[in-house]
Amino acid sequence: MSKAVMINILGVVLVLFAFSMIFSVGFSVYYNETETTKALLWSMFITFLVGAIFWLSTFRVQKKELRAREGFAIVALAWGFCSLFGTLPYLISGTIPSFTDAFFESVSGLTTTGASILTEIEALPKGILFWRNFTHLFGGGGIIVMSIAILPLLGIGGMQLFKAETSGPAKDKLSPRLKDTAKILLLIYFGLVVTLAIILMLLKMSFFDALCHSFAAIATGGFSPKNLSIAFYDSPAIEYTLAIFMFFSGVNFTLHYKAVNEKKISGYLKNEEFLFFTSILAVVTLVATVCLVISRSVSDFTGFEKAFRDSLFQVVTMGTSTGYATDNYENWPFLPQALIFILLFLGPCAGSTGGGLKQIRILLLFKHARNELRRLIHPNAVILVRLDRMPVSQEVMTSILSFFMIYMGTYVIASLLLTACGLDFLTAFTAPTTCLSGTGPAFGSVGNFENFGQLPSFAKYVLSACMIMGRVELYTILILFSRTFWKN
Amino acid sequence: MSKAVMINILGVVLVLFAFSMIFSVGFSVYYNETETTKALLWSMFITFLVGAIFWLSTFRVQKKELRAREGFAIVALAWGFCSLFGTLPYLISGTIPSFTDAFFESVSGLTTTGASILTEIEALPKGILFWRNFTHLFGGGGIIVMSIAILPLLGIGGMQLFKAETSGPAKDKLSPRLKDTAKILLLIYFGLVVTLAIILMLLKMSFFDALCHSFAAIATGGFSPKNLSIAFYDSPAIEYTLAIFMFFSGVNFTLHYKAVNEKKISGYLKNEEFLFFTSILAVVTLVATVCLVISRSVSDFTGFEKAFRDSLFQVVTMGTSTGYATDNYENWPFLPQALIFILLFLGPCAGSTGGGLKQIRILLLFKHARNELRRLIHPNAVILVRLDRMPVSQEVMTSILSFFMIYMGTYVIASLLLTACGLDFLTAFTAPTTCLSGTGPAFGSVGNFENFGQLPSFAKYVLSACMIMGRVELYTILILFSRTFWKN
Repeated sequence: MSKAVMINILGVVLVLFAFSMIFSVGFSVYYNETETTKALLWSMFITFLVGAIFWLSTFRVQKKELRAREGFAIVALAWGFCSLFGTLPYLISGTIPSFTDAFFESVSGLTTTGASILTEIEALPKGILFWRNFTHLFGGGGIIVMSIAILPLLGIGGMQLFKAETSGPAKDKLSPRLKDTAKILLLIYFGLVVTLAIILMLLKMSFFDALCHSFAAIATGGFSPKNLSIAFYDSPAIEYTLAIFMFFSGVNFTLHYKAVNEKKISGYLKNEEFLFFTSILAVVTLVATVCLVISRSVSDFTGFEKAFRDSLFQVVTMGTSTGYATDNYENWPFLPQALIFILLFLGPCAGSTGGGLKQIRILLLFKHARNELRRLIHPNAVILVRLDRMPVSQEVMTSILSFFMIYMGTYVIASLLLTACGLDFLTAFTAPTTCLSGTGPAFGSVGNFENFGQLPSFAKYVLSACMIMGRVELYTILILFSRTFWKN
Repeated sequence: MSKAVMINILGVVLVLFAFSMIFSVGFSVYYNETETTKALLWSMFITFLVGAIFWLSTFRVQKKELRAREGFAIVALAWGFCSLFGTLPYLISGTIPSFTDAFFESVSGLTTTGASILTEIEALPKGILFWRNFTHLFGGGGIIVMSIAILPLLGIGGMQLFKAETSGPAKDKLSPRLKDTAKILLLIYFGLVVTLAIILMLLKMSFFDALCHSFAAIATGGFSPKNLSIAFYDSPAIEYTLAIFMFFSGVNFTLHYKAVNEKKISGYLKNEEFLFFTSILAVVTLVATVCLVISRSVSDFTGFEKAFRDSLFQVVTMGTSTGYATDNYENWPFLPQALIFILLFLGPCAGSTGGGLKQIRILLLFKHARNELRRLIHPNAVILVRLDRMPVSQEVMTSILSFFMIYMGTYVIASLLLTACGLDFLTAFTAPTTCLSGTGPAFGSVGNFENFGQLPSFAKYVLSACMIMGRVELYTILILFSRTFWKN
């Protein structure tokens, strides 16, 4: 492996990461938080220093074509190092004194998970709160670039398909070059963030809160500067607005690009993954609403609207792997609870900032299952699965099946490790899936009005690993455990 | 479809099923249970009558080669009809007056699951108790014939592999003709039953109890004529004996044939599936023992032996999909509990009387996962998974991956249906897997010292469906829901 090239790229990422801390410094200065400002500046300086050393020490290295192996290593290292340096503001300011906790919070922010170890969030200085939500923005941007520019090239878990989606065949091309594609998608990403922030301010949210929530919603993160999350505002307008924006953040960003560029929405309606995702959220919302209406013995419109809104918000926030909360779903009947649990596995569309198995894979697995039954009746027929009218190769299908199996295997192993820490069944078997999909809340002692602070340290590291692994489509990390990877 | 041929075969199965009731009649007469005897004779008569009508009405039909479609229909119908007529002894004798309950008990017996709706088992007449356990024997025999003679031909879920195992390539052949193979394996099956029954009697179990427990252990069923299951005897010798026999019932029966025939045990040690299965049970037993030793603060040998025996028995009985009980694992620490839960998914080896995903599939999935990682590093290398030194085709591998996905999908849908009945998470998400794998006990309100009687009727039907589907490798039933199946 060409270590120098890897160190060079890592250096660039860290310098960029260091510069991005300036916004938090700004807020810290504005709110007169002297100590926090110092802590943030120190964090910035240390991160910059390390990044610069990495960069400059390998400046003269010849840029050559990277092999798959280096691609994997860079992705894994970039997430690892950013998570590590992301702890500095928490540690130096002393707001999160334990390294384990700071690391968990940093990983949770950058992977746009939103699982938190904090109990008294509002007690934190604004500069730190801003940094916490800013990691969502930074991570979300990283995910878009990574999932469009890097992962498809590595050909894991059927991600070739997502590549086809974003940079694909000529007739349907978004942009012929990956670099341009990434730029355009980042523009849409920031466009959505700004739009949502403005709307939230119009709905009487403060500038600070609007920015923080907008970062989290569009990056499908879930951190909030409020202890009670979105429930704090008790505002139907804010809830509906967030639900709509979270939903669109869970959609493949290339569809947004087409919609903006071609000024028509038919692109959405022709996309099978979008329709599948929308149907699933609609059905679960409907089921949850009916269950809530019955269990709450609702009789008037106000109660009905509340049941619908609670269902919609929780379903969309959990189904897009955001993880905000306005109502405790653990008080719901078991069926909608179980459906929320299943949504944790699925995650939203590929090419979004969300995590999980991704809707496109689930849709293809469904189609494949139907085909398998047909094949049993007509053993000699060759029936390919089709997506958006294009046939999906058997190779990609096998890739997706393998991804599903490895995803479930990782989930089971993580759950077993959590039971080994003494965690109860409900917590141990739901926390790994919420972390793998980058959602945040789960069930049991980590429900959507609880937090991860009380978990044993070992469990926090297991879940941190799940967050990073889920974020980089598993293989990127798992491959590091393969002997072949280390052979020359 | 040639309906006549299907009806003809179904007739033969039912007549055979009717005749098999004679043993229960014998016990009923011996124990002077006049009413039960009458009920059993009526059941026998009705079953025989229907079977004979089916048979005779299609006697002149030309026997032609069956197509895959008919194969599926016959397997599904045979299990459905036997389960239906198996309820007659319970219903006519009035020992289980509710049809739902009688159907659940009948399905559970025939699929060798061992999940029971009965609370006061010992209050039942001996004739009925014998019938209950006899359904295990009958079902277990049916499973062996089916999984060796029929399912491999239908090519589902990689079962082609198990065919290769049993009737496979010349150099390793068990017997060139399927009919003979089935006969030989049934002989081994009954040989094991008789041997175990004799040993249990030597260990001071009554003739009746020894037979019943032997049927259940070798068929990996789990019904017991005692309320407390095996815990009733409180005998280490009986527990160790049963553990050994359950273990061997979970092994591919062709290995037993080879061992008997060639008078050497090296066949076992050369079989990767056997070694994998043994290792998994050994590791889980070890972990459970350590956890029990710690949680019970064991300090002397007696306590240690008890912890080891409790672990071994529960792990083997759950890992072979039998489901007997000597200790309530729900009082164990969470890690061994979670491992037991995972064992429910795995099931024992293919070609045994056990259910679940089967060890051979799990082993191949592991190997495939490792290969996937290698392939990412060397994208152009063709690396086939190998089993017992033979390469496994990509087609079979995809088949197994699909089976895994469909198994998980069925499990999730069944779990959601159970939550819709208002069952709690723990029960709803563990009961379907114990039924799919034909084990019996699960967690929550259906633990290994609980029963299924208190569940809502709808849940009982969902679980009955799981038991049958699991038993026939899913596809056989799922295919009935495919439109293609019904097209001409």
